[in-house]
Amino acid sequence: MRQAGRYMPEYRATRERYGFLELARNPEAAAEVTLQPVQRLGVDAAILFADILLIVEPLGVGLEFAKGEGPVIHRPVRTELAIAGLGRIDVERAVPFVFETVRLVKRALGGKVPLIGFAGAPFTVASYVVEGGPSRDYLHTKRLMYEEPDGWGRLMGILVDATARYLNGQIAAGAQAVQIFDSWVGVLAPEDYRTFVLPHTRALIRALTPGVPVIHFGTGTASLLPWMRAAGGDVIGLDWRVDLDAGWAAVGGDVAVQGNLDPAVLLSKPPYIRQRVKDILDRAAGRPGHIFNLGHGVLPQTPVEHVKALVEMVHELSDRR
Amino acid sequence: MRQAGRYMPEYRATRERYGFLELARNPEAAAEVTLQPVQRLGVDAAILFADILLIVEPLGVGLEFAKGEGPVIHRPVRTELAIAGLGRIDVERAVPFVFETVRLVKRALGGKVPLIGFAGAPFTVASYVVEGGPSRDYLHTKRLMYEEPDGWGRLMGILVDATARYLNGQIAAGAQAVQIFDSWVGVLAPEDYRTFVLPHTRALIRALTPGVPVIHFGTGTASLLPWMRAAGGDVIGLDWRVDLDAGWAAVGGDVAVQGNLDPAVLLSKPPYIRQRVKDILDRAAGRPGHIFNLGHGVLPQTPVEHVKALVEMVHELSDRR
Repeated sequence: MRQAGRYMPEYRATRERYGFLELARNPEAAAEVTLQPVQRLGVDAAILFADILLIVEPLGVGLEFAKGEGPVIHRPVRTELAIAGLGRIDVERAVPFVFETVRLVKRALGGKVPLIGFAGAPFTVASYVVEGGPSRDYLHTKRLMYEEPDGWGRLMGILVDATARYLNGQIAAGAQAVQIFDSWVGVLAPEDYRTFVLPHTRALIRALTPGVPVIHFGTGTASLLPWMRAAGGDVIGLDWRVDLDAGWAAVGGDVAVQGNLDPAVLLSKPPYIRQRVKDILDRAAGRPGHIFNLGHGVLPQTPVEHVKALVEMVHELSDRR
Repeated sequence: MRQAGRYMPEYRATRERYGFLELARNPEAAAEVTLQPVQRLGVDAAILFADILLIVEPLGVGLEFAKGEGPVIHRPVRTELAIAGLGRIDVERAVPFVFETVRLVKRALGGKVPLIGFAGAPFTVASYVVEGGPSRDYLHTKRLMYEEPDGWGRLMGILVDATARYLNGQIAAGAQAVQIFDSWVGVLAPEDYRTFVLPHTRALIRALTPGVPVIHFGTGTASLLPWMRAAGGDVIGLDWRVDLDAGWAAVGGDVAVQGNLDPAVLLSKPPYIRQRVKDILDRAAGRPGHIFNLGHGVLPQTPVEHVKALVEMVHELSDRR
């Protein structure tokens, strides 16, 4: 999960100096917030600070991060006709600052912990482009899929191409693994996933530089896990809405899994947090291939000491095995 | 699923005359909107029009339906201390109009189709009382569960008692089956469900008048289905995020299932709707115990002719088997 965020005083201090997009576009500042959790929390890997929507800026859809509101796309694209007007995204020209951030972080880490690159999955990025922002029901996206499947396919194709070059660029710059976030894919019926998402995510994962581990994550995916596995990834991310052992069984024993503590548990006190961490580690049963993680990002209200305590608990309880 | 709603011109006309709570509290008007879908759509059962929060009014939490915003609870209850101050809910005194609505609908139906009663499950109702309205992350609810489990247990006990008397009152007034809606339970980890929800929902279902079928429904429940089944119900409702056959397998073959078309599909055109209906019926494979339904309520944007066409398709495609 993204580690940098508003729950950290260091991050809030940096954010006072930069707007969100400004921060993501400034390699020194983005490298600084990427490194903050490594220094403060003692986590086992760094995760690139970037936003999943950076690559859609060249589409001319009017991306903005409104204060306190998250991303807004002022000119959403909702029809096959509108999509026909979109061109190929020139990733190298659009986000050179991200590749520079990777290089800076890599140098600063000096091999101490690995760096994980990061991009949105085509469905989740497409859903923002179509809806214009976060949505409750994703009705414009679903309408487009159902009624103009060719237009949907074209939009997904543009995003697959751009995201592959985006992640391969991060790998070339030094990322040692990459995460693909399909944050909102859990709104879909399995039949939608198989028809409208799986082929595209599979094409993306197949286009990535061989030999670099791919973490494939979504939320609300309990019934989609076998199909996410079919789309690809060396590690399948599990959110908290599934028992870790059941989720692992659903993706098969031949892939690794990442997860899956409910971030809300970090709002409770350490003794209770410990009990829930232990439950997850018990379900992993010491099998190789489990990466302990939250089931989604750290909530802004989380006390930073609780996150630090969590990292220590995981280290301590895993060492015992 | 609730059938009456803003997608129907008849319903919108009635709503011009009454506020939402006013409508729910007026037996003649509530009976009228309960009957509208039966007359207009030709569905096989009527579903009582009522709101799941009506029973919490006597708690003095300040329930209001703000225009276009859904329910607001002005004085949410978030701590064990605050919960200690809550008394037993006098259901018979709080909602006599609901029982009167049931009697009026029953008389008007004249045995043509059965009438299904309706209540919120204790978790979903409690989450409104604790959060003060709909929520994204349900953090106050989770904090209460994790940090003050005795307070949470007391709140759930109050709601189980009230909901049992509420549903038994509907049954006494003539409801031939009852639905329990745990609309937001899908935000929980399975471990949360087993610890903080299952015992209470089970107590509720066990307290209901024997011999009356109970439909137990939630959304986002793919990984919770076996535990919802353990809590009880003769029919388990499936939302659209699970393949019908996989969901049925998860609850076991000895209960019936209801579901599970994504309501968003009704925004597409009839040929596509038909394809998706057929997929669900194929997955049910003509086994007895499948009740075709949507995976959640009808969306306000839905053309009413699409809902009518859906009912006809289901009748036609089911008759063929």
